This record gives sequence, structure tokens and C-alpha cells, in this order.
Amino acid sequence: MLKITDSLVSHTLWEIEKDSYNLKEAIADGSNFMIGNGYLGYRGTFAEDNIDDYQGCIVTDTWDKADNKWEELCNVPNALFLKLHYRSNPINLKDDLIDFQRKLDMRYAITSRYVTKMIDDEIVLSLYEEKFASYKKKNLVMMKYVITSSVDVTLDVESGIDILTWNINGTHLQNHELYATNKGIGVTSSTFLYHDTVVVFESSSLPNLNDELIITHEIHLRSNEPFIIYKTMIVTSSNEDSNPKEKVKQIVDSLESYNDELNAHKKEWDNIWNQFDITIKGDNLAQVGYRFNTYHAIIATPTHKNLPIGARGLSCQAYQGSAFWDQEIYNLPMYLYASPDYAKHLLSYRYDTLDGARRKAKNNGFEGAFYAWISGKTGDELCPDFFFKDVITDRKIRNHFNLWQIHISPDIAYSIKKYYDVTNDREFLLNKGLEMLFEITRFLCSRVYYLPSKDRYEIIRVQGPDEYHENVDNNAFTNYQSYNAFKWALEVKNDFSIEEITSVYKKINVTPKELELWEDIYKKLYLPKPNANQVIEQFDNYFTLESIVPASDVTKRLIHEEEYYGWPNGIAVFTQCLKQSDVLQLFHLYPHLYSNEIMKANFNYYEPRTLHFSSLSPSIHSIIASRIKDKEKARDYFYKSLSIDLMNTNEAVSGGTFIGGMHTAANAAAWQMIVHGFAGFSYEFDTLYLNPFFYDELKELSFKLCIKNQHLTFTITKNDIFVINSTKTLKLPIMIGNTKYELHDKLLVSLRGENND
Amino acid sequence: MLKITDSLVSHTLWEIEKDSYNLKEAIADGSNFMIGNGYLGYRGTFAEDNIDDYQGCIVTDTWDKADNKWEELCNVPNALFLKLHYRSNPINLKDDLIDFQRKLDMRYAITSRYVTKMIDDEIVLSLYEEKFASYKKKNLVMMKYVITSSVDVTLDVESGIDILTWNINGTHLQNHELYATNKGIGVTSSTFLYHDTVVVFESSSLPNLNDELIITHEIHLRSNEPFIIYKTMIVTSSNEDSNPKEKVKQIVDSLESYNDELNAHKKEWDNIWNQFDITIKGDNLAQVGYRFNTYHAIIATPTHKNLPIGARGLSCQAYQGSAFWDQEIYNLPMYLYASPDYAKHLLSYRYDTLDGARRKAKNNGFEGAFYAWISGKTGDELCPDFFFKDVITDRKIRNHFNLWQIHISPDIAYSIKKYYDVTNDREFLLNKGLEMLFEITRFLCSRVYYLPSKDRYEIIRVQGPDEYHENVDNNAFTNYQSYNAFKWALEVKNDFSIEEITSVYKKINVTPKELELWEDIYKKLYLPKPNANQVIEQFDNYFTLESIVPASDVTKRLIHEEEYYGWPNGIAVFTQCLKQSDVLQLFHLYPHLYSNEIMKANFNYYEPRTLHFSSLSPSIHSIIASRIKDKEKARDYFYKSLSIDLMNTNEAVSGGTFIGGMHTAANAAAWQMIVHGFAGFSYEFDTLYLNPFFYDELKELSFKLCIKNQHLTFTITKNDIFVINSTKTLKLPIMIGNTKYELHDKLLVSLRGENND
Repeated sequence: MLKITDSLVSHTLWEIEKDSYNLKEAIADGSNFMIGNGYLGYRGTFAEDNIDDYQGCIVTDTWDKADNKWEELCNVPNALFLKLHYRSNPINLKDDLIDFQRKLDMRYAITSRYVTKMIDDEIVLSLYEEKFASYKKKNLVMMKYVITSSVDVTLDVESGIDILTWNINGTHLQNHELYATNKGIGVTSSTFLYHDTVVVFESSSLPNLNDELIITHEIHLRSNEPFIIYKTMIVTSSNEDSNPKEKVKQIVDSLESYNDELNAHKKEWDNIWNQFDITIKGDNLAQVGYRFNTYHAIIATPTHKNLPIGARGLSCQAYQGSAFWDQEIYNLPMYLYASPDYAKHLLSYRYDTLDGARRKAKNNGFEGAFYAWISGKTGDELCPDFFFKDVITDRKIRNHFNLWQIHISPDIAYSIKKYYDVTNDREFLLNKGLEMLFEITRFLCSRVYYLPSKDRYEIIRVQGPDEYHENVDNNAFTNYQSYNAFKWALEVKNDFSIEEITSVYKKINVTPKELELWEDIYKKLYLPKPNANQVIEQFDNYFTLESIVPASDVTKRLIHEEEYYGWPNGIAVFTQCLKQSDVLQLFHLYPHLYSNEIMKANFNYYEPRTLHFSSLSPSIHSIIASRIKDKEKARDYFYKSLSIDLMNTNEAVSGGTFIGGMHTAANAAAWQMIVHGFAGFSYEFDTLYLNPFFYDELKELSFKLCIKNQHLTFTITKNDIFVINSTKTLKLPIMIGNTKYELHDKLLVSLRGENND
Repeated sequence: MLKITDSLVSHTLWEIEKDSYNLKEAIADGSNFMIGNGYLGYRGTFAEDNIDDYQGCIVTDTWDKADNKWEELCNVPNALFLKLHYRSNPINLKDDLIDFQRKLDMRYAITSRYVTKMIDDEIVLSLYEEKFASYKKKNLVMMKYVITSSVDVTLDVESGIDILTWNINGTHLQNHELYATNKGIGVTSSTFLYHDTVVVFESSSLPNLNDELIITHEIHLRSNEPFIIYKTMIVTSSNEDSNPKEKVKQIVDSLESYNDELNAHKKEWDNIWNQFDITIKGDNLAQVGYRFNTYHAIIATPTHKNLPIGARGLSCQAYQGSAFWDQEIYNLPMYLYASPDYAKHLLSYRYDTLDGARRKAKNNGFEGAFYAWISGKTGDELCPDFFFKDVITDRKIRNHFNLWQIHISPDIAYSIKKYYDVTNDREFLLNKGLEMLFEITRFLCSRVYYLPSKDRYEIIRVQGPDEYHENVDNNAFTNYQSYNAFKWALEVKNDFSIEEITSVYKKINVTPKELELWEDIYKKLYLPKPNANQVIEQFDNYFTLESIVPASDVTKRLIHEEEYYGWPNGIAVFTQCLKQSDVLQLFHLYPHLYSNEIMKANFNYYEPRTLHFSSLSPSIHSIIASRIKDKEKARDYFYKSLSIDLMNTNEAVSGGTFIGGMHTAANAAAWQMIVHGFAGFSYEFDTLYLNPFFYDELKELSFKLCIKNQHLTFTITKNDIFVINSTKTLKLPIMIGNTKYELHDKLLVSLRGENND
């Protein structure tokens, strides 16, 4: 048994179990123990829970803007609601328990609870509740609820659909209409702004035959004979089907038994883990942490349609259920390398929202595609001008995530290139990718400024990933990502015929004059370089800011604990304290751009100045620490990143704004820390690179990748790398250390003497 | 008698008299009743006053930075200190008085006080005190102190040099050393940072023969026989003379009697007013207000050396005793048109500080001359990065006056051009002016950005005169002023021989490539134009900000009364509320750039959105209102501007920073409001323009100008303009209304039917 925290354990390394409950942890536990399938996320709450317990079922593609607040996804009525009463009093299943245990089975995506309680000093009641959100039928959530009593007893079961939902920004669902069928009851609701219809349907082994949302059943328990209740929740919306009620009916008609549905669901998860699991030997915490985080990354990812991965997945409405740059830079790599079809979905989502990005560019006086900082269904900017508030004065703060964090656009270009490099999917490029690339380049072209006195282009007034410094110039990360977009936009034509490339140019009217300008910008875009100490300045004049080491000392200056640290006058603004490091982020994306020596100098400079108040920060530090062979830091930041949700280390509110829920990017970073970090894998210049670097406890890593359609299995120990190519239709160049190999069917390379010391 | 306020009157329209005293008004009255001569300013305090009464004598050219605070001028020890005691108790001359009257004689720059007091219920003591700061001998301040008693009585007179001085930012003077001569005593002190020496010397008709700073004399008054004490204060510093003690000695040796020195001083003032007075018939308040403001503008202006006019003159240390753009745009015009030598001094000061401007440019990554926002002796930037503070959190605010308010540089170029246009002083241009102009152009050239997608140059991230909006792009005022600099820098060569212009190019290495670039920028610099409603947008996207009309409504949002309204999160930032209007300012500098119709549309748009929280704002509104023939607004803003100091309408503290003292720019604007406003005078295209516009009460204006060395006297009534050219060496083109005339010796033009209705 692995003990994770005082109350959290894992027996098989495929599940987590917790033996305590308290409301203070309800936000975090409701997220950690949730189930989901990329279509909906059902929080890890219990059958009797309601709005006060942060119960929620968040459904993708239901964006709505209500009460003049921010656009976000709907939290739909809860059809799994079930509450026990004894002699007219509700049975409290949270306090004064004999036994409590909750479990998340990551292997099969099942959440469960077991409770034993004494009632009236004579009845021992034990309850078992399990739920799964079918990965086979994405609209379906099922619950099995088992009640056993030590004596014969009669209980009342309140059951039905609870329509009171927890909302962060406004009441989205209204005009609730109840309807009844012979299979159960449903409720249709419509959203405030777009008048979308959402249908939630309940069928139950305690059938609801009245025309009411919630009714009470009397049940008679016999001593020690389990009484089983099954409940089924089906959710549809008009965004996926023009007749969502009819769709519900079809699903209801197709329903099989609880066990059969569960088995079909489990088969899907066999397949999922076959692609994404990494077996880790020697470090059980890493193994559980990896699976926990990856489980959450997967259930946050829509696969039924081209839709975004929310920054908090479907764990709650925070961050508006929408995509940030995290999607491409944190979530996409695992899919890209392990199951490229997922990546194609995500990039196709960016193509589907290209018009939104065009509108954003145009609305702000630019050309091409300026992708939304917060991107929902249409790609129009969902990020409000005023995001946080000054908690001291209660005045809103104008942050500029939406206008100045422009790196989102070249980040997408970067990912399209990566996707193309790995898959060689020319069709995707011709149909979607190149259009996005050129529109992004066009945007950047309209966003750069030429400085005649220096004969160079600059990118000024931006905000890098380190959000504590807004309004900066020549951000090392943004400039390089932009440079990379220009470079590829010019070079990509060599991969296609003149006819092919011309047809794309024509479609969006790319002129020869534009191409000339791109060429000029490519040649003259200013790229901050390492200084005499080999350190790259994060942005112009960063080094002139106050240096506080360790960065955490700056927190002493807080006046109010919930203060936002950044713009306009937060405590980090005039210091070198970073939320996360842009320069290390750059190294992560371009592992061969600079020498290990330079990476080390930068790591040593920036790491003590970094606050890691972004959940994106620790993982990158772990990966770069692996590159520069710093065992302790690589492992410590790995644990830190794995623990963000698992041990609930991050705050749920900042600058007056709720930012709780699953940290989906950090979840997905687990895979990157292992594969890009400890395995030292990268794919560049049509070559696989492997430079494993294991901390002491780590004994073996085993994972699968799919590169150029070759299905590869890697087993890496401190001594050897063993790769099997089960596809064998190509020979892949592979660099291990400084030696180049060719991988056809299999390859065994000894690392003795090469590594780790 | 003119009653100005409840306690303020004027009998002759050449003086103000006040009959009440309270400490709350001491900051304002100490400024209003001050004396000075451009070398020093001696506040309008009384002989017995000290640090608690805001006593002060501020001396130009003594900049110091102490206690790690801001650089500012020294307030020097007070050698006019004199305090009466009766039976060992100090006589309180502020409270329980029989009579009190203080007076500022603007005609001859004399400040005085008359007090009557009853002591011990039997002695009626009357005191008369007068002081002047010699305009003939700038180091000299003299006081006559007359005591009369109703009965024979013995008093103690404490007299000497009080070295405890009021400082805003740090203790500047230290290492005080007392020395005694047979003429009096002196104290030498040195400044903190630069170790400059300041000497203050006292000689008195009550001679101080002890070796002490302050001693007590016993005096015996005979009933109704005035007892007269004379005190003389001499101030020198090592910045004006390498041996300041010796310089004191020379002045002491040259001293004549009080009356002789006073007469010499008065003669200087005859001459001053001969140049700068405007006689105003029909509006006594305007007459007194003009003289009061102009008096203060003059005493703030150094003429003994090329030194700046402080934004608060020499009335206190606020604004660091240094020049802002106010100097060129507000103070310089009166001198330029009425006595160009003064203007030459001011512009020569800018030449003397050109290296400081070069350093500022270089330090910030630019080329050429980036003039300091706050300019002291060297021209290095004195404006601290953190100027105001957030009075709610007590955190400092990073305002960007120093870095983003770049218009100061083209403002200076504008003034050099004006000076040249008016004087035709080719020598000044060849020796100083062109070098400044080219270095300013060079700076602007390195500051503009070329936007390839729009094929135009832009000026981004600036702050216009309206300081409530920082970080704005394409500010209408800044862009036009810059355009004007490029234009003139290119055109000015036509006025000089190739050899002349080449020698200047060579001196500062202006290359043909640079000139080409200037030409390109001149052609392609973006200039915001009137929109469909004829309104010019103050900066990009200004119109998207919240519109609050009247602007004053925004003040309801204040949390703390001393809050700064601007950057970063003040209440005006996200609104269209202006501190002052940049577009109207532009019209003021270029009266013929746009039609009256456009000026009117802009006035109507911006005026209700302007808070006038800059003392520079009302005057411009009066002038533009005159242009667009709005009698009421022209007069109201005229009074408002005249009253800023006279009626003490502005606050002394903002954002935690002391900003009290004389508003020197508003003082100087009095002349502009009359000459540029009501007389409608401007000088452009080698032509004098006159478009008088009188409000109802105004009957006649009479003033003198000196254009192209022609001494002109103007007398304007509602019906006629009468101009006499007493020099008669040139014929000057003059446009009155739409008719062009030529002025040789005299010109009388009837305005009947042309104007005012």
C-alpha cells in the first residue's frame, strides 16, 4: 500500500482511496474524484449532495453568458440525486460515521463511496455508491447505489432530478420543463444568451411515475440483504443534436443493463490506457501520480467532436470551460506522440475557430488570425477585459491576457508544425494547417513593428507566459515563437507542389508582397540572445527590475492574502519574481536551440526567481532540470507538479476570482515530465532523440509512442534503452546520447557509462 | 476698491491686500504673497515665522538629493528672522489682533504686513514689516521692520539666522558653519550629494556681534515713536561663484541704504512692467488677476543665467524646482513675443542641458536628445520612477511621466522654431538651435515604429499632456508635435547656406541616410484626423472608453479623497475623463491647422469630459473658446485660470505627494489668454494674425509685442485695432479678420461688423 497523504492511499497504484470527508476539501475532492469522458464531467460528489456541496455536472459545448457576467459552460441538473431519510429525517452520511471510504478507480474511471453509519443506536446502515461516465456512450452517467441494514428497517428514498445548480457566473439554465416517459422523466432547459436546449433525463430502478422532479419512495430493507438502486442520467443538448429530446430517447432505447454498460465502458478504458499508460518501476508515488494526472487529462479531452480542452477540464466552470495556450503546449504533446488522432481533433478545433481568430484580429486592428486567449465554441475572445479585482479596493483590474498575450497564435503554429513533423499528415496541412499557419503569420506580420534606427523588427507590448509582467517588449518566448512561425510559413512551401501551395495562397489571398514582407521579418526579427553570463533576458529591461531571491520573500509584501501579484500594482510587478519562466519554457519547446551550459545558466538564474504560482511552472522546471542533469530539482519539481491536484496545493481563489478545479495542463504535463524529461525524448529534424536521466529511485520507464505511423514501445532503465517498432514499415533515425542509430524493428542500446553521473 | 474674495481686495489694481490670517491658508498665502527675482524666492511669511509656518527661501541652481529621496532645490537658512518678546514671552502676532493687513505690491514687488495688537490690556503695539527681493542685486533680500508702541516699553528682539528649514524631500544643507564679520554674521552650509556650498549672510541695524546664530536685543520704545529695524539677507552659492563667501563680501561692501536699494529695485520693475503689463479696461478683476499672475511668472524666471523655470517657480520645493514642458509651452510665449531675450535664455538653458537629454536617450536605448520630463541643472532626468503613491494601500505607483511623456522633446523643437520665426535669430540657430532640433529629430526617429502592414509610422506607448491616460498610442498631440519637428528639421536647411547647414550636420554627424529616414517618417507618420463628427480621437481607441459627462461625476467613485486619478487603476483611467485636453492643446499651438468648425466640434466633445485637474487646462479652454467665439466659456475659463493661485482653488496634495506652491504655468498663461485668446493674436507664416474676441465686460486691451525686432504697441477695443510700430525698420504683414494689411509705422483698423457677434 502506498500512503500518499495522511488520508490518501493507493493499494494497486491504479486507484486512490480517501478515508475522511470534510466540506472544506469538497471543492478539491469533488474534482479529484470526478468522472468524465470529454463530453461531460460529473464531479466526485455523493448521491445526496447538492449546490452546497459543489455538486456539478459540466457539459461541453454549452457556453452561455448570463446575468451580464462571463461566458462559461453549463452545470446541468443532477439526475443522480438520491437522498435517504429515516423516520422523516435525512440521514447524515458525512458526519458521525463508523466507516468512510471513497475511491477513484483510474483504471476504469469509476468513482465510489462506502459508508457505514449507526442510526438510533441500533441500526447499522452500510452504503455503497459507484458511478461511471460512460466512455462508450458519452451522454450517459450511471450510478449503482447499494444499501444494507443490520436490521429490518423502512427508509424513505428521495430521488429525481435536482435542478438547483452551482454557477460561478450567472444562471444559465431556465425555462425548465419537466416531461415524463415510461422509461423515466426528463427536464428540458434553455440557456440564457443563445437559447440552446439542454435535456437531462433520469431513469431509475425506483421509477418516477409522477409528474414531479423529485419524489419519495418508501423502501423496506431486510437485515443484511443489500437493496440495490440503479440510476441513469442522460444529458443531451441542441449543440450536438438538433433534437436533443429525440436523442435522449434513442439512448434510452439503446440502454443495456448497468453491468453491460459498465463493461463496454471498461473496454474503452483498456484501449485508452494501452495508448497512454506509462509503467514506472521503482517509484510508486510517481506511478500513482502519473495515472491520476493522466486520467484527469484524458477525461477533460473531448473526442466526440472538435472541441477545446478547458483549462479546468470539465471539473467546474472555472476558466470558462475554455481552451488556453495550455491546450497546445501542455495537453497536445501526449496525444501527438502517443495517439495523433486526438491531436488532430484539437488542431481541427483551432481550424474550426479560425474565423473567430480572424474576427479578433480585425476587431483589434490587426490582420490574419489572432487566436483567443480564452477560446470556446466559436473562437471569439471570451477573456473579459477585467478578470481579477483589486481585493483591497474592490475595484476591477484591467489585465491584458486577451490583448497582449499574443503568443497563443504562434503557439498554435508551433503545434501544427509539430503535428506535421510527427505524422507527415499533408492532407491536414493542405485542408486546414497551412491556412491557419498563414493566417497566424499574417497576424504576426501586422503585429510586429519595424524600428528603423535599429533596422530590426520588434514585438512590443506583450505579456509572456509569465503573466506577472504585462506590457513588456521583446519577450524572449513570444519573439522566438513568432520567429518560428515566420520561418515555417516560408519554408513549408518546399514540402508541397507549386499547385498545392498556390491553391492555399489563393484561398486566403496571400500576395507575393506579403511573402516578401514575411521574409524580411523572418530575417530581421529581434531575438534576445544570452548575455555575457549566458542568461537570456526574459524581456527588455527585465534585469533592471528588483531582484528578490528567493522569490517567495516577495510574499511578505502582501497586504491581503488574496491579492493578485501582477498588473497593475501587485507585489511582483516591479521585481524579477516570475509566475513561471518564459525562458525555460522556450528551452522546453526547442530542446536543441541552446547548449546544456546555457540552459543551466538560465535555470540557475530564473529558478530562484520563480514563484510557481502557475500550475504550468513546476513541470517545465522538472523537464529542464532533467536536461541539465539536476537530479534533485528534476524529481522535486516532478513531485510538485504531480501533487498540484492530488495533494491540493494550489489556491482556489486569486484576485477575487474562483480558479479552483482540476489543473488540466499540469495533469497532462505528467506525461511530458516523464517522456520529455526523464526519458529525454524529443522529435526534431526528423529524428527521435533520447537522453534518459533518472533520479535515484527511478528504475524503469515503459511507454508507447506513434511516430510517422510507426507504433513504438520503449523500455528504458538506467542501463539500457530497448525500443520495439511493431509497425516496421519505416526506418526511423534515432539519436541516443551522441550516437545516431536507425530503428526498424527493434533496437537495444546500452547506456552504461553514458548517463546519470 | 475691488473685492476679490471675502478677505482679499485691491485698491489700485496693482496690489492685493488681505485682512485675515490663519495657518490653514499659510501654504497658499506664503506663495501668493511671496517675493522673488528668478534667483531666489522668499515666501510670503512673516519675520517671526519658522518651519511650522512654511517659511522658506528657495534658491535656484542648488539642486540636491538627500536621504535617498528626490532631487530638489535647497530651502536656505532664514537671515530675516526676527521675533519680539515682551517680559520673556513671545508676542503672538497671529491671534487676537486689533488689526491685520498684509499686502503684495505687484507693481514694485514688495510684500508687507501691518499688525496692531494690545498687550497686557494697556500697550497698543503696531508693527509694519516690508520686504523685497532685489531685482537689481539678485542675491539680496531686505526687510524693514517698524515697531510703534502707545506707551514707553522695553521689548526683547530675537534676531539672527534660523537654520531650521522646511524640506519636502530630505535634509539638504548640513555642516553649518557660522562666521562673523564686522558687517554681520554668515553661515555656510554644504549640500548632501554634490557638496555645493551655500552661504547665507545677515546684516542688521541691530548688529549681531556675538558668535551666535540668533541673539536677543533689548530695545526701548518711546510712546508713538517708531522704532525701525533693517535686516539684510544675502545668499550665494558655489554654483554661481567659486568663492561664495567672497561674493557675499562684495555684495555687502556694495550695499547702499535700504531706500536706495529699494529704489534701484523699483526701477527694474518699471522696466519689467513696461514690457509685460497689459492694461485691461472694463474688467478690474481681470486686471488684478493678470498682474498677480504675471508678477509670479516673472519672479519665477531666472534671468541672471540659463536656468529653468520651476513648475512651482521658487515658491517651494514642490516639483523639484525644475522645468517641465510648461516652460516652453506656457511660460515662454510671453517672453518670446514681448521680450525675446528672456526666451533666448530659456532656450539656451535647453541647449546647456542637451547632453543631459542625450544621456537620457542613450540610457533608455534611444538616439539623439530625449529631454527630461523634470529638468534641473544638467538636464538629466529628475523625475523619479515612482512619483505618487496609492493612498489606499500606501504602495508607490510607477507613473511613466519620465519615459512616456515624450512630447517634451518636440515641444522644445516647436519653441525653437517659434523663436526663430519671431526673431529671425540665425546665429542662435547655427550655434544652438539646429543642434537641438536635429538631436530631437534624431530621438524621435529612434522612437517611432514603422508598421509594415499599414505602411506608416506610429508613435506608441506614450502619455500626452492628459496624464490620466498612460500607455496610449498615436496621441494626437504627440504625433503632430513630432511631425512638426521632422518637417522643420527637413525644411530648415532652406534658410541656410549649404556650408552653414553642413557644419551643423558634421558637428553631430547627421548622415544622408538619416536625412532620408527623416524624410520617410515625415511623409508617413500617422496623424489622427477628425472623424465623421469632426472630432479628433485623442489617442487610439479613446472613443471606446467609458464616456462620463460631465466628467466631474467620476469623482463619486473615489474611495479616498487624495487618490491619484490616473495610472494604474485610478478612477479616470478607463473613462474618457481627461486631466486636460490634448486635442485642444494641439489647436492652441497650431491655430490655423483646423477650421473653426472643427475646433468647435472638438471643444464641444472634449470640454464636458475634462476635469481640469491640471492647472494648465483652464487657460487653453479659454483660448480655444475665444477662437470659437464662445463668450461665456472664454470668460469663465479665463477667470478660472486666473484664480488658481489667487483664490487657491487647487489642492496641495495628490496621491500622497505635495504639489502646492505657485502654478507658474497658469501664471504665465494669463498673458496667453489675453493676447492669444481675446486679442486673437498669433504669429505664423511670417504673418501677425489678430482676431479679437471680447466678452461683454471687456472694453480695451493694450499691450506691447516685439516681432522681428519691431516694437509694437497694440490697443484693441471692440471697435478698433490700433497698432504702433515704434521701430519702423520693417513692414510686417498683418491679417485682421480676413483682410491682409501691412504694418509699417502705424495701423488703425475698424472692427465694426467684423467681430463679436
